[in-house]
Amino acid sequence: MHTFRLAMAQMNPTVGDLDGNTRTILRLIGEARTLGADLVAFPEMALTGYPPEDLLLKPQFVHDSLKFRDQVVAQTQDIAVVLGCVDRNEHLYNTAAVAYDGKLVGVYHKIYLPNYGVFDERRYFEPGMECPVYVINGVSVGVNVCEDIWYEVGPTEVQCVAGAELIININGSPYHAGKLDFREQMLAARAVHNRAFVSYTNMVGGQDELVFDGGGLVLDPHGQLLVKGCQFEEEMVVVDLDIDAVRTARREEPQPGKSPDELARVGTPSVVHVSDYRDPGQRPELPKHRHTALQSLEEVYAALVVGTRDYVRKNGFQKVLIGLSGGIDSSLTAVVAVDALGKENVVGVSMPSRYSSEGSIVDAKLLAENLGIELQVIALEQAFGAYLDMLEPQFRGTQPGVAEENLQARIRGNILMGLSNKFGWLVLTTGNKSELATGYSTLYGDMAGGFSVIKDVPKTLVYTLSGYVNRRDGLEVIPQAVIDKPPSAELRPDQRDQDSLPPYDVLDSVLKAYVEEDRSYAEIVEMGFDPQIVQQVIKLVDHSEHKRRQAPPGVKITPRNFGRDRRMPIVNRYRQF
Amino acid sequence: MHTFRLAMAQMNPTVGDLDGNTRTILRLIGEARTLGADLVAFPEMALTGYPPEDLLLKPQFVHDSLKFRDQVVAQTQDIAVVLGCVDRNEHLYNTAAVAYDGKLVGVYHKIYLPNYGVFDERRYFEPGMECPVYVINGVSVGVNVCEDIWYEVGPTEVQCVAGAELIININGSPYHAGKLDFREQMLAARAVHNRAFVSYTNMVGGQDELVFDGGGLVLDPHGQLLVKGCQFEEEMVVVDLDIDAVRTARREEPQPGKSPDELARVGTPSVVHVSDYRDPGQRPELPKHRHTALQSLEEVYAALVVGTRDYVRKNGFQKVLIGLSGGIDSSLTAVVAVDALGKENVVGVSMPSRYSSEGSIVDAKLLAENLGIELQVIALEQAFGAYLDMLEPQFRGTQPGVAEENLQARIRGNILMGLSNKFGWLVLTTGNKSELATGYSTLYGDMAGGFSVIKDVPKTLVYTLSGYVNRRDGLEVIPQAVIDKPPSAELRPDQRDQDSLPPYDVLDSVLKAYVEEDRSYAEIVEMGFDPQIVQQVIKLVDHSEHKRRQAPPGVKITPRNFGRDRRMPIVNRYRQF
Repeated sequence: MHTFRLAMAQMNPTVGDLDGNTRTILRLIGEARTLGADLVAFPEMALTGYPPEDLLLKPQFVHDSLKFRDQVVAQTQDIAVVLGCVDRNEHLYNTAAVAYDGKLVGVYHKIYLPNYGVFDERRYFEPGMECPVYVINGVSVGVNVCEDIWYEVGPTEVQCVAGAELIININGSPYHAGKLDFREQMLAARAVHNRAFVSYTNMVGGQDELVFDGGGLVLDPHGQLLVKGCQFEEEMVVVDLDIDAVRTARREEPQPGKSPDELARVGTPSVVHVSDYRDPGQRPELPKHRHTALQSLEEVYAALVVGTRDYVRKNGFQKVLIGLSGGIDSSLTAVVAVDALGKENVVGVSMPSRYSSEGSIVDAKLLAENLGIELQVIALEQAFGAYLDMLEPQFRGTQPGVAEENLQARIRGNILMGLSNKFGWLVLTTGNKSELATGYSTLYGDMAGGFSVIKDVPKTLVYTLSGYVNRRDGLEVIPQAVIDKPPSAELRPDQRDQDSLPPYDVLDSVLKAYVEEDRSYAEIVEMGFDPQIVQQVIKLVDHSEHKRRQAPPGVKITPRNFGRDRRMPIVNRYRQF
Repeated sequence: MHTFRLAMAQMNPTVGDLDGNTRTILRLIGEARTLGADLVAFPEMALTGYPPEDLLLKPQFVHDSLKFRDQVVAQTQDIAVVLGCVDRNEHLYNTAAVAYDGKLVGVYHKIYLPNYGVFDERRYFEPGMECPVYVINGVSVGVNVCEDIWYEVGPTEVQCVAGAELIININGSPYHAGKLDFREQMLAARAVHNRAFVSYTNMVGGQDELVFDGGGLVLDPHGQLLVKGCQFEEEMVVVDLDIDAVRTARREEPQPGKSPDELARVGTPSVVHVSDYRDPGQRPELPKHRHTALQSLEEVYAALVVGTRDYVRKNGFQKVLIGLSGGIDSSLTAVVAVDALGKENVVGVSMPSRYSSEGSIVDAKLLAENLGIELQVIALEQAFGAYLDMLEPQFRGTQPGVAEENLQARIRGNILMGLSNKFGWLVLTTGNKSELATGYSTLYGDMAGGFSVIKDVPKTLVYTLSGYVNRRDGLEVIPQAVIDKPPSAELRPDQRDQDSLPPYDVLDSVLKAYVEEDRSYAEIVEMGFDPQIVQQVIKLVDHSEHKRRQAPPGVKITPRNFGRDRRMPIVNRYRQF
């Protein structure tokens, strides 16, 4: 039996940290070698972190990253390494470098460059044109990168027709809810179609708005799942592959090849002989896999935790600051922050106004107690009074309205930023996706801060996640009163969100259709929603683009977030009604 | 003599305003017809405005824009129209539609799709593969779009080899200083190389951060400039072309053709017969051209004015509000605003702090008087005192520092936003590019506002432009004291910018090298700058990305602005020293 031991290093690189990422990579190569792996695969752009964005336009950055790549190549004694990095000739390429025994044996240049959603790969890279297969320890290995494997007629098939028995696909694939199953089905289809082992290595960790969820996969030539990596955690996933299974499967039923012409359009195949088969002898036992399947709420919650932790830590912050209003948004944000950073690193600030209910203050205190975090109370009345005095000549004769409401929200923003500047704590904002979509938030007020934890979480999901957190902990971490009370910004007497917005379940459904699915006004009405509500929602979304442009980043958890995913003009007179 | 009368409609569309843009287009077609034009060309994406960004992902938007395109096509009796719009089959295309006598006679799909700088065209469009030539009134006309003409071996040559005598190139080409000469040289080279008339139609007006500068051009087969449109102004540019000149030039010296293979890779040529030559008879006299060449400072200044005017007006605002500190940045911003919107639409607010010099208040008043704008004075001491009181328990025992300084800047931000919310005036922020680059500004403080007029103007250019404004007006609109005093944020006693930053002439040179030219630390030191200063500047730039991400948009005037042009990660540990 010819067994190939494959290791997938599910690592968490930091963008730009060439030195630190290289050290991690070298450590993991050592670990894989000790485990007797024939090959260790690293995620897409593991060396640079992903996405490095316009760092790639700096020639010095590319130069430095090639230097660090050479350092890695030099440390590949007795093991093959597939490393995500960049390569440069006349152009720049998103690359999987293949090294063995201290030598660079090949570079694969990503062919399909995503340039949609959050991706801008055509901005930086040229597409590759070659589909090499590397014979490593007698096994034919096809290497490709991320998007490449999503094409049925793509490099995977070209490589398998050229003899590849194992596909190493390396990824920097950002998380959104529901993506995982889709991936597994696609990979199983590739494995079965090509009668090959297919492996999927993905990075973990947060980078600005993106979270990478790991969840590495290896499938056999029958599409059976052999192993699954943890989600959101660094892990070395190791598996033994019985390569004879490929040979048997292909003998039983040959691959249904595409026409040579069609395959030639994808890229040119080649075979690079790296090393003959040699008996590995007795190898160490495989490490136990830690993977347990996450339920869907668990998964979303984990994404928020990891995205928040990495943004805070990778930016060099220790502590965070959250304005606790006694509402459900700030409560959930605080719970995530405590899970991400530890209760000793989260400070809550309650900033009651003249319109705050007694309950709000009590609820904020109760939450802080439940979480064991410090709570400071700073009433904003004095500053509010000062502003009203100062602006009295200007405001005289006008009715109190949005100006006065926003002033209070902005005083809160100033207090938080004052503490942030004084003590070096990062402010976490607490707005949800439904608010950001409709502009139901105050620029420089509740939108003031460095990171927006639940920015991509619709209000209805805020409720669901809060219920999840309470069930998980077996106690009401988020006080039931917080969950039960009608949402309010408390910026004027008896204010309720529902005075200005449709009910949240309706709102979130309309928003999903309009923002995430690009449905038209007519289509949304067709879905059964009240035309007046649909008009109201579309107007609110269209008229608040300028606010979103000045919002802090936050964790992407849906197929389309408000960030690089959605690039709307501010000046925009398109109207459907 | 075979004379072809060409009209170029240098229009100012609004993104998304399909209805309004269509009405303008129909009016201009009528105008061109009255002038006896054989053909009228409109800018790239004139129908939708440019760039419509993710509006293009909405199927309904594309559907609607095709409907409006058909309306335009139906109104082309007796005149050929080249219209920038989108076209859709299985994919979406950036398109020049050609219509004549009420019929759509062809669509040209842009071949070279820019995906660098501010451009994301690969996000939306597929590249075209056809290079049609339209025979209109007996003249062979090659139509292509923007970037297409920048390639020597591109559609222009393919079309000319296929017989095109006149090239209609339509553009949505954003302005930056110095671009104009470059354009003219390139177009002259195309004209000479292909022995053809080359025309360049560009849009005018502002769209978010971009300004389109018009400046249409027509060159004869010898590369001689025949006519030049105004910059930054709507204009119908009309010119008579003696088509026989092409035939003579080609007889004298045939075009140096590329190999058919090389041309075939660009696109497939074809010839579409639209209409035979017919004698136009007596035509109306050509309108006088209004073009006068702008000096370079004039040009930059005009870009700021038009960019500001269009952002404010196209977003539906009437009045703007500017915090006047008595410094040069806010003074120049106010002058631009008055030129853009009229003095009756600009309100200045002086917000002295306990650290403001007497001179600052006097200078702000003098400026307001010179400009004839309303000035309100609101001292911020009362709110500052209130905050210090409220935060006393937290701040006790700490040294006054950035927290206290920023509080004052944020109070100013709140006052401006309070007035904005109360009266519906847009706040213009006053920060320059050098400040934004180094993070020498306060988030939610002086960075609070809707539009940042001089966001892309380095401090040294702020001085030069201020001098220009004063010379132009023949009086010190900006008081000499403002120009002479050392720059200061006046947030602590005796504060000077130069305590925290290198001298501005050095700073701006280093910033240009680092930010706009992507030079490395070593290269910049090599240029002769003090290594310590270079390190300081690079650190400041790298550490303030999070601030820029929350900054309002502003007019792009350099080859690389802080906006869509520069997409840097916030989490970024790349270090060169």
